[in-house]
Amino acid sequence: MTNEENIVKSLMYDNDPFSQWLGIEVLKVEKGYVELQMTIREDMCNGFGIAHGGITYALADSALAFAANSHGIQSLSIETSINHLKPIKPGESIKATTTLINETNKTALYSIDIYCGDKKVAYFKGLVYKTGKLWPTDTQ
Amino acid sequence: MTNEENIVKSLMYDNDPFSQWLGIEVLKVEKGYVELQMTIREDMCNGFGIAHGGITYALADSALAFAANSHGIQSLSIETSINHLKPIKPGESIKATTTLINETNKTALYSIDIYCGDKKVAYFKGLVYKTGKLWPTDTQ
Amino acid sequence: MTNEENIVKSLMYDNDPFSQWLGIEVLKVEKGYVELQMTIREDMCNGFGIAHGGITYALADSALAFAANSHGIQSLSIETSINHLKPIKPGESIKATTTLINETNKTALYSIDIYCGDKKVAYFKGLVYKTGKLWPTDTQ
Amino acid sequence: MTNEENIVKSLMYDNDPFSQWLGIEVLKVEKGYVELQMTIREDMCNGFGIAHGGITYALADSALAFAANSHGIQSLSIETSINHLKPIKPGESIKATTTLINETNKTALYSIDIYCGDKKVAYFKGLVYKTGKLWPTDTQ
Repeated sequence: MTNEENIVKSLMYDNDPFSQWLGIEVLKVEKGYVELQMTIREDMCNGFGIAHGGITYALADSALAFAANSHGIQSLSIETSINHLKPIKPGESIKATTTLINETNKTALYSIDIYCGDKKVAYFKGLVYKTGKLWPTDTQ
Repeated sequence: MTNEENIVKSLMYDNDPFSQWLGIEVLKVEKGYVELQMTIREDMCNGFGIAHGGITYALADSALAFAANSHGIQSLSIETSINHLKPIKPGESIKATTTLINETNKTALYSIDIYCGDKKVAYFKGLVYKTGKLWPTDTQ
Repeated sequence: MTNEENIVKSLMYDNDPFSQWLGIEVLKVEKGYVELQMTIREDMCNGFGIAHGGITYALADSALAFAANSHGIQSLSIETSINHLKPIKPGESIKATTTLINETNKTALYSIDIYCGDKKVAYFKGLVYKTGKLWPTDTQ
Repeated sequence: MTNEENIVKSLMYDNDPFSQWLGIEVLKVEKGYVELQMTIREDMCNGFGIAHGGITYALADSALAFAANSHGIQSLSIETSINHLKPIKPGESIKATTTLINETNKTALYSIDIYCGDKKVAYFKGLVYKTGKLWPTDTQ
C-alpha cells in the first residue's frame, strides 16, 4: 500500500462506520484524488422513493475527506455545497471522483462529480481547513 | 392532525426509510416550519469518531424537505450548502429548526440551524423548486 | 470614534476606492456588526435595466469585510454565496445588515441581509479566515 | 454575427452599463459558452489595495448571464457562490471561462474559472432559472 492508500483505507475508512454502512468501496486513491462507489439501497431512500439527499452528500463528503487527508495532513471540511441534479433509484450505483481546484497552506478547495452510469447526478464543492496535525505514515 | 402535519408525518416521514434509520423525531410542524431532532449513534460516525458530515446534512435536508412540502406543493431541493461548525459526539442529540428566507411562485429559500444543546453545530442553506404538483390533502 | 469605527472608517473605507465608487455609506459600526447603505445608479445596471448582480454582491462583500475586520484582526473572505431574490431599479436604496453565525479562532461565518425598503432583495453568506495580523488601533 | 453573438453583444452587453464600466471585453461567444476579459484598475480596489471581491464576482456573474442567455432563452441567476483564491493587483488582467455542468428544462448550472495569467484567482458556481421568454433573434 502507498502512504495515501494507507491513510485512506487503514486509518480513515476502517474506522468510519457510516461510510461502511453506506457500502462505500474505495476504487482508487492517489495524493489528493480518490474514486469511490456505492449502490443505493431501499433504506437510503426518502419519501419520494429516491436516494435521500443526505446519501449523495455523504458519499461526496467522504470523498472530500479521503482526498484532502490523503496528503497526510489532517483536514476538516468547513464549507460544502451540493446540487442534486437527477433522482437516483434503489439498485443504481453511483461513483464519485474528486478534482482539486486550489490549495494553499491552510485550505484546499475540491469539486466532486457524482455519476450514475454516464448521467451526472450531483455536483459538490468543498473547502477544507488543514489543521497541521499529521496522520501516522507507517504503512506496514 | 393539521394538513401540514398530515403531509409531513403520514405522506413523507412514514415513507422515508432513511429519515427513520436516522431516528428523526418530528417535534413540530407548521406551514413552512418544522423542528426535528435525532441522537447521534456510533454507526453514524466517521474516522475521527464524530458525526459524519452526511448525518447533519441529512437531518437538515429532511428539515428542508418537510418545511418546503408542508405548504402542500411538491418541492425539490436544487441547491444546498452546509457549514459544519462544531464536532458532534455519539450520544449527543441535535435539533434542527427552519427559517423561511424568501419565497416566490417557483422557488423557496430556507436556512436551517442545527443545535446540540445551546451550541450551534451546523448552518445549512437550501433552495427548493416548486414543481406545482399537489400533495393529497385528505387528513383522516 | 471607537476602535471599531476607526478600523472600518479610517483604515478600511477611506482607502477603498470601489466602496466609494459605489457610494456606500457606513450607517453603523459595532464589534462584529455593520449597517451599510447605497443607492443604485444607472451605471450600476445590467442589460435587463436592473442592478447588476455584482453590485449587490459588492455591498454584501464590503459589509462582510467591515464586520469581520472590526474586531481588529485582519480577515480575508474565503467562501461567499449570494441569492438574488428580487430585482432592484435605479434610484432605489439598499441596506445591508450583518449577522455573526459562528466564530472560531481561525474563521468567522456571517450572513448578510440586503433590503430595499421592507423587501428582502438578496441573501449573502460569507466565511472569513483570520490571518492573525492586527489592524493598528490608535484612534486619534 | 451568429445568433449567440448577437444576443450577448448587441442585446446584452451594449445595454449593460456596469459591464462597460468594468471594461469587460467579450473574447468568445458560443452556445452556452463565453470567454470574457478585463483589467483591474485602481478604482476597483478595496482597502487592502487589491481587487474588491465584488469585481471578480461581477466578471463571473456577467459571464454566467452571457453564457446562460446565449441559448436565446432569458435566464436569471438564482444562486451563486465564489471562492476568492488569490489577490489581484491593479494593472493585472483577468479572464473568465464558463463550463456548463448541468441543464434541465427550467435551470442550468455553470462553473466559472477566473485566471490571472496561469494562476487561478477565483472559482464561481452559478445556477440560473430559465424564464421561458425568448430574446429576439434577428441578427442584421
